Amino acid sequence: MPLDPVTLSADLIRCPSVTPDAEGALELLEGVLSGAGFACTRVDRNGVPNLFARWGAKGVRSFGFNGHVDVVPVGERSDWAHDPFGGEISDGMLWGRGAADMKTGVAAFVAAAVDFVTETPPEDGAVILTLTGDEEGPGLDGTRALLDWMKAGGEAMSVCLVGEPTCPEVLGDMIKIGRRGSVTFVVEAEGVQGHVAYPQRARNPLHALIALLAPLTATPVDHGTAHFDPSTLQVTTIDCGNAASNVVPAKARAVFNIRFNDAHDGAGLVEWVKSLAAAESARSGVRLSVTATISGESFVTPPGPFVDLVAAAVEAETGVTPELSTSGGTSDARFVKDHCPVLEFGLVGKTMHKVDECVEVAQIEALKAIYGRILRSYFG
Amino acid sequence: MPLDPVTLSADLIRCPSVTPDAEGALELLEGVLSGAGFACTRVDRNGVPNLFARWGAKGVRSFGFNGHVDVVPVGERSDWAHDPFGGEISDGMLWGRGAADMKTGVAAFVAAAVDFVTETPPEDGAVILTLTGDEEGPGLDGTRALLDWMKAGGEAMSVCLVGEPTCPEVLGDMIKIGRRGSVTFVVEAEGVQGHVAYPQRARNPLHALIALLAPLTATPVDHGTAHFDPSTLQVTTIDCGNAASNVVPAKARAVFNIRFNDAHDGAGLVEWVKSLAAAESARSGVRLSVTATISGESFVTPPGPFVDLVAAAVEAETGVTPELSTSGGTSDARFVKDHCPVLEFGLVGKTMHKVDECVEVAQIEALKAIYGRILRSYFG
Repeated sequence: MPLDPVTLSADLIRCPSVTPDAEGALELLEGVLSGAGFACTRVDRNGVPNLFARWGAKGVRSFGFNGHVDVVPVGERSDWAHDPFGGEISDGMLWGRGAADMKTGVAAFVAAAVDFVTETPPEDGAVILTLTGDEEGPGLDGTRALLDWMKAGGEAMSVCLVGEPTCPEVLGDMIKIGRRGSVTFVVEAEGVQGHVAYPQRARNPLHALIALLAPLTATPVDHGTAHFDPSTLQVTTIDCGNAASNVVPAKARAVFNIRFNDAHDGAGLVEWVKSLAAAESARSGVRLSVTATISGESFVTPPGPFVDLVAAAVEAETGVTPELSTSGGTSDARFVKDHCPVLEFGLVGKTMHKVDECVEVAQIEALKAIYGRILRSYFG
Repeated sequence: MPLDPVTLSADLIRCPSVTPDAEGALELLEGVLSGAGFACTRVDRNGVPNLFARWGAKGVRSFGFNGHVDVVPVGERSDWAHDPFGGEISDGMLWGRGAADMKTGVAAFVAAAVDFVTETPPEDGAVILTLTGDEEGPGLDGTRALLDWMKAGGEAMSVCLVGEPTCPEVLGDMIKIGRRGSVTFVVEAEGVQGHVAYPQRARNPLHALIALLAPLTATPVDHGTAHFDPSTLQVTTIDCGNAASNVVPAKARAVFNIRFNDAHDGAGLVEWVKSLAAAESARSGVRLSVTATISGESFVTPPGPFVDLVAAAVEAETGVTPELSTSGGTSDARFVKDHCPVLEFGLVGKTMHKVDECVEVAQIEALKAIYGRILRSYFG
């Protein structure tokens, strides 16, 4: 009898697994997978729970799925019309935290994988599932821990599909073939305090920040690449805290973030911004200190056999031709890409992270069907 | 016997007259002036003490002096090596709060005026002194109250000299013939919050502020006029307070001040900034709300007989040719200019508002001599 992804989704939602607490969700999945012949190993690290599951032999051609069972906090419980951890089904919808992001995606690929190895077990092939309890948090000991452990033990996925919600409007309308990188800059400006009536005796740190940021915000960072939109730069805060309108302040601080495409790497952008800051420092006499945090490099799995296979399965099941996109935020695909070719495909995520998160029950079933078709096609 | 301006200065310093508390300083002066035949009237308003003193008849040609007896706070008493209210004389210096700004200037013109009307009383001429206890504070009920009272009562100065410290390096090196105006702008920016990964769905208020301020800070407001340096613009704070580096903030705020010359008036600048903000709002979709406070218009007493008279007296006493300047901050001359031609001349103010404020004793005596020469020359 096929595994019902809707029941499994609802069961997962009933585990209140707010990052980094897995609250029984991984145990539930381990039970299901072990029962279907998957060899399961807990790969917890620094208190973060992770589960590795492999059907088939080690070292053979393998198809991987990656996902997370942790969810973001509920916020104000009283804002919810449905129990966020109730797994309630009504009006054709499944309600609760994780209904979109991404307990349903996990349930769909687990159900598809179990059915696949049960009904049409591949010869000389393996299915590998990597499941983490920390994707919404710092992410240092989640999928990264699983990949580190796999590398150390000679475990490998030939390709991997991350089951995050990817579709903007209808199921099937978008596959993510890569993601932009992200780097955050903090610029501390230190000038010379003075009276506004005598600006020649002061050095205004705000003027230096404005001079640095004006061209960065007025001009596009680039014009996009073959698979990417233009990189974007957003200033997220400028602060000074000077209450005296007749005083040129001594110090000010700005923070900005660049989401960058494959025309750049993080180190190159850091070098670029530091050189602009140094030039502005030399011009203005205001000391600009730049610190940068690269939280992910851009990556892309260019159109080719793997992309074609996934896109064909999506179109066959939904009748929709998926857009191949690299838009949006980051996901654990940024770690998997160092391991093997990786794509992301999942359901419509409009309510993710929101109050009364929900998804159509029919979408969960359709998503399982797509994942099943992908597995059969890959090993077929 | 001539009135000693050094003793009078020290006596004034011993009155701890921090704005708006006159603490006996005006009473001290009223005693001295009444004794020399000045008709004295207290013109207090809203708790601010002010003194009007006239020698000679009402309505005749008159020379005016203006000054203040209030001082800024001491700050940390323990930072001072000298008693800020001790009036101590040592090493040829007079020490204490107000030694530069401007109890010594007041003492010098009071002593010069008393000696003048005693020794060489003018026929058909008057000497008018306006003294306030609030120049360092809001200034709403200080010299303005005196001028309002004078206008209502038919009192008038033909010309006026404000005794503020004006000399940058040596006594005699600068007469202020006018002052720049000052207008402060607060710009509240309201955009649309969003995720930095999807900037197309947000409207960044910081980007709008940067776009507004970049040309204002990069390009001079003007190139100066016959008697003025270029107007200056200084951003004094930008604040947003957004701690999340992945969030485009909804709101931000900037404050900037323009010190402007006689190429502008306050209203014109306000209109100009509002039109720039409106254009940026239209371009960016970020609502920019501008509020402006004009704290003074620019003014100048152009070179002519009054300026020549004062400059000649300064040069005769000091051997220094004074620069005719309109630089620096505001003073009560900005009120007097609506009443009669006004100039400012006083001693070297390097230590004004600082710890261990002081002035050379010899400068106080030389300043009295200059003021005395000006009076004799004016009525001669």
